[in-house]
Amino acid sequence: MKERGLLIVLSGPSGVGKGTVRQAIFSQEDTKFEYSISVTTRKPREGERNGVDYFFKTREEFEHMIENKKLLEWAEYVGNYYGTPVDYVEQTLSEGKDVFLEIEVQGALQVREAFPEGLFIFLAPPSLSELQNRIITRGTESEDLIRNRMAAAKEEIEMMDAYDYVVENDDVELACERIKAIVLAEHLRRDRVAPRYKKMLGVE
Amino acid sequence: MKERGLLIVLSGPSGVGKGTVRQAIFSQEDTKFEYSISVTTRKPREGERNGVDYFFKTREEFEHMIENKKLLEWAEYVGNYYGTPVDYVEQTLSEGKDVFLEIEVQGALQVREAFPEGLFIFLAPPSLSELQNRIITRGTESEDLIRNRMAAAKEEIEMMDAYDYVVENDDVELACERIKAIVLAEHLRRDRVAPRYKKMLGVE
Repeated sequence: MKERGLLIVLSGPSGVGKGTVRQAIFSQEDTKFEYSISVTTRKPREGERNGVDYFFKTREEFEHMIENKKLLEWAEYVGNYYGTPVDYVEQTLSEGKDVFLEIEVQGALQVREAFPEGLFIFLAPPSLSELQNRIITRGTESEDLIRNRMAAAKEEIEMMDAYDYVVENDDVELACERIKAIVLAEHLRRDRVAPRYKKMLGVE
Repeated sequence: MKERGLLIVLSGPSGVGKGTVRQAIFSQEDTKFEYSISVTTRKPREGERNGVDYFFKTREEFEHMIENKKLLEWAEYVGNYYGTPVDYVEQTLSEGKDVFLEIEVQGALQVREAFPEGLFIFLAPPSLSELQNRIITRGTESEDLIRNRMAAAKEEIEMMDAYDYVVENDDVELACERIKAIVLAEHLRRDRVAPRYKKMLGVE
């Protein structure tokens, strides 16, 4: 009878502040998302606990997970593997809890393939809007600088196409508020709510 | 350059508390919606101002508006016409403001035809969820009572199909919060935001 939770994927260009926004969200008491614990092959640091901070695995175990499609997405950074375990995500969703992933753009594209019904939120740099002001007030900056920023902006805008929502990170608190509004609204979509009413009342 | 506003339509079965929720929303200082002023043929009451409380018209003028398709929706109650003027809605939306309509279910269906891109929110009675509890704890109420409530619930659930979102009115403040979250989230949809970025930066 329990409604399946939503898979929320927060991503965006590197340096946009995904980690800061994620930390701010999880520091708020009214946050009801479950943070998806990653799998890694790096050694636990002082105080880190298995199953809380990370699921710690050997390279062999991790590669076994890759082969057996036990990872929603994975990547290798500085000689260590990092990934999102599909079983943990699936189990948490089936308990009716929303699962929150904060990952890189490449990882988000992998997740989209496995979970097209996920909620994909693109965190956009405020520099995109600022760029417009710079273009309007041309003259205070060199044409070259503007051209470079335009090139980066084009890439960022193209990235957005794989996402459902775009949240500008002009202010961390505002970004959190917007993300929470998106999740709340998604839970209220008629195509989610009406079947639940129909089911609970046995109405066709 | 201004983004067109959203047309927000709040509707639901009679007696669900649409008017109360609308008043609560417009009593909140941070509400940025424009309330759509209705046209009516009834006489102004003490203190009511034309263009503020209503647009007051003669029956002849009103019927002329119907013929010329100047009303998004209209109905006759107790010998007076009431309707939503399309020009006011169009003008306000084109100024980039969100327009809020609170109307009956029949009117909402008329608006949906003219504005399929509108945001249609169904205000659901808490009795729908309560009904489930009653069914589960059968025995405290007669089978007839439950059957009657089930029939009403079926009608209400069928009504939902024409809407985008369902908000349960179990608590007026919560209902307002949910409606605002829906509107905020809709403004952040990628298919609304990305074209704006593309346009403002001249990117294709």
